[in-house]
Amino acid sequence: MTTASLDILGIGNAIVDVLARAEDSFLATHGMAKGGMALIGADQAEAIYQVMGPGLESSGGSAGNTCAVAAALGARVGYLGKVADDGLGQVFAHDIRAAGVAFATAPLPAATAPTARCLILVSPDGQRTMNTFLGACVHFSEADLDHAAIAGAKVTYMEGYLFDPPAAVSAFHAAARIAHGAGRQVSISLSDAFCVHRHRDAFRSFVREEVDILFANESELLALYETDDWSKAEAAVRAEVKLACLTRSEQGSVIVSGAETHKVAAVPTQVVDTTGAGDAYAAGFLAAYTKGLGLAEAGRWGSVAAAEVISHFGARPQADLKALVAR
Amino acid sequence: MTTASLDILGIGNAIVDVLARAEDSFLATHGMAKGGMALIGADQAEAIYQVMGPGLESSGGSAGNTCAVAAALGARVGYLGKVADDGLGQVFAHDIRAAGVAFATAPLPAATAPTARCLILVSPDGQRTMNTFLGACVHFSEADLDHAAIAGAKVTYMEGYLFDPPAAVSAFHAAARIAHGAGRQVSISLSDAFCVHRHRDAFRSFVREEVDILFANESELLALYETDDWSKAEAAVRAEVKLACLTRSEQGSVIVSGAETHKVAAVPTQVVDTTGAGDAYAAGFLAAYTKGLGLAEAGRWGSVAAAEVISHFGARPQADLKALVAR
Repeated sequence: MTTASLDILGIGNAIVDVLARAEDSFLATHGMAKGGMALIGADQAEAIYQVMGPGLESSGGSAGNTCAVAAALGARVGYLGKVADDGLGQVFAHDIRAAGVAFATAPLPAATAPTARCLILVSPDGQRTMNTFLGACVHFSEADLDHAAIAGAKVTYMEGYLFDPPAAVSAFHAAARIAHGAGRQVSISLSDAFCVHRHRDAFRSFVREEVDILFANESELLALYETDDWSKAEAAVRAEVKLACLTRSEQGSVIVSGAETHKVAAVPTQVVDTTGAGDAYAAGFLAAYTKGLGLAEAGRWGSVAAAEVISHFGARPQADLKALVAR
Repeated sequence: MTTASLDILGIGNAIVDVLARAEDSFLATHGMAKGGMALIGADQAEAIYQVMGPGLESSGGSAGNTCAVAAALGARVGYLGKVADDGLGQVFAHDIRAAGVAFATAPLPAATAPTARCLILVSPDGQRTMNTFLGACVHFSEADLDHAAIAGAKVTYMEGYLFDPPAAVSAFHAAARIAHGAGRQVSISLSDAFCVHRHRDAFRSFVREEVDILFANESELLALYETDDWSKAEAAVRAEVKLACLTRSEQGSVIVSGAETHKVAAVPTQVVDTTGAGDAYAAGFLAAYTKGLGLAEAGRWGSVAAAEVISHFGARPQADLKALVAR
């Protein structure tokens, strides 16, 4: 195995977020499941945009957020994801590169499909509800894999949302084979309980066969193992995966690895918008882990990064994260 | 005089902001005057965007911000301003309408000029430095004036930045004549000391002849009267304008009207980004004033609105402003 050229190579749906405040009654009126992510078409995206409040546009995408946060923490990061050659695609590309992430996936002609957007309604309690129009992302395929970048990255990190666009599924299976062929590690975040329900069998076999480092929150892990018993789910993931980081919102996280268990406290903060909390946790963990720090310290970096991101609108960091973890 | 159909009719440059954090050394390297607003061309906008950090896109424009904040406080508000029929133009139109503001100015064909954007660098101390590419705004002209809306508004409010695009100057002179012809009031914000320097004679005569309610901060007022003596400037504006609201950052504001003087305290807050502070103050003041509240109370509304807007990234409100002024 050669020296790694990257700490983290992220693969995900390249999305620009449009965030707006909304009362819970708005979610109910429009049939949105609070806290979830729903896939929508172009017409539905237009219809929701028309009725939602004033927006704030910010680059997003689960793995994209993780890459931006990890780079802010000093990790060497690359990203693979499909935007279109339109205005939002330029915004996405600018933002992730300006965050210090190498991003070279060829954009799709805008006439084929536009850059993906996610309409995010933020409730008064800070909880976010997402409506995603995948647009160009469904055109991400094996042809977009950068073999050298994957083989040269300590960890290839993929978001569970990639189970939604069919061409991406074969692409990330191929990415996992490239990574393992080069003696590297593969990591995935389960992303969303609804997404896990949609593709449970595919998730189960991928986690069992390919995943070295798993990120999941409580509802996602319970969905994966079809149980409502937390200790059963924790035992199952401990048996199947070398290293799992299980996040539990304000109760912090539990890191399980073989016989080891580390409980990590959440960092208290004023919750403004939970968008990107899990993405930031994974970023903090992986930035510390690939730097060679211990599991408990990596979990602390995850908690610090998540707290920063939920303290303001949008999923990309606004404060100096290096200074925050140094304290 | 008929019953007013609007409390406030704003006229301004319709702009989408791109906000990013930057160290003061970045401003120095790129020759930007901290705290100011510089006009830039399309090529320069592209060049600055390439080197600036990850951005947050948010509808802006000085008078547009004022209209959005005033509507959030319950005022009946209309807005006139020129976007192009492109993606950013749709974002601007969506956001101001979603804020509850009537906005019907015909968009410019995108092939003529794109929607204006303002590249805003936010320093670690929260101070903002703006670079504005006016794009479609230079095509706003008398033909875009909605006579009925102006004649039906208690106050027609214009931003001083309108002195930059030449066609807008004759348009807002015409707007002032329509407003006064209908027995209404005309208000202007001086916007920016550099802008006042660029067009001092035009500002001076307009303020003297047409303005009933003036908004200015310290440096803008000193620029207008070419003095560095605050008491001289205050005396000059008191003699020339019926009602002037003079803002002094963390020292609050002074409202002068004939023999009356009201000192209004600032509302303490954690400063994150000063973008839109003056716009929000004017909004709070005018929302209360057109509701019939007294000058001191109107100033308090201005302070509350400004404090909310500077406590987060972006110039449009994120909290429930009605609840904040009710306390």
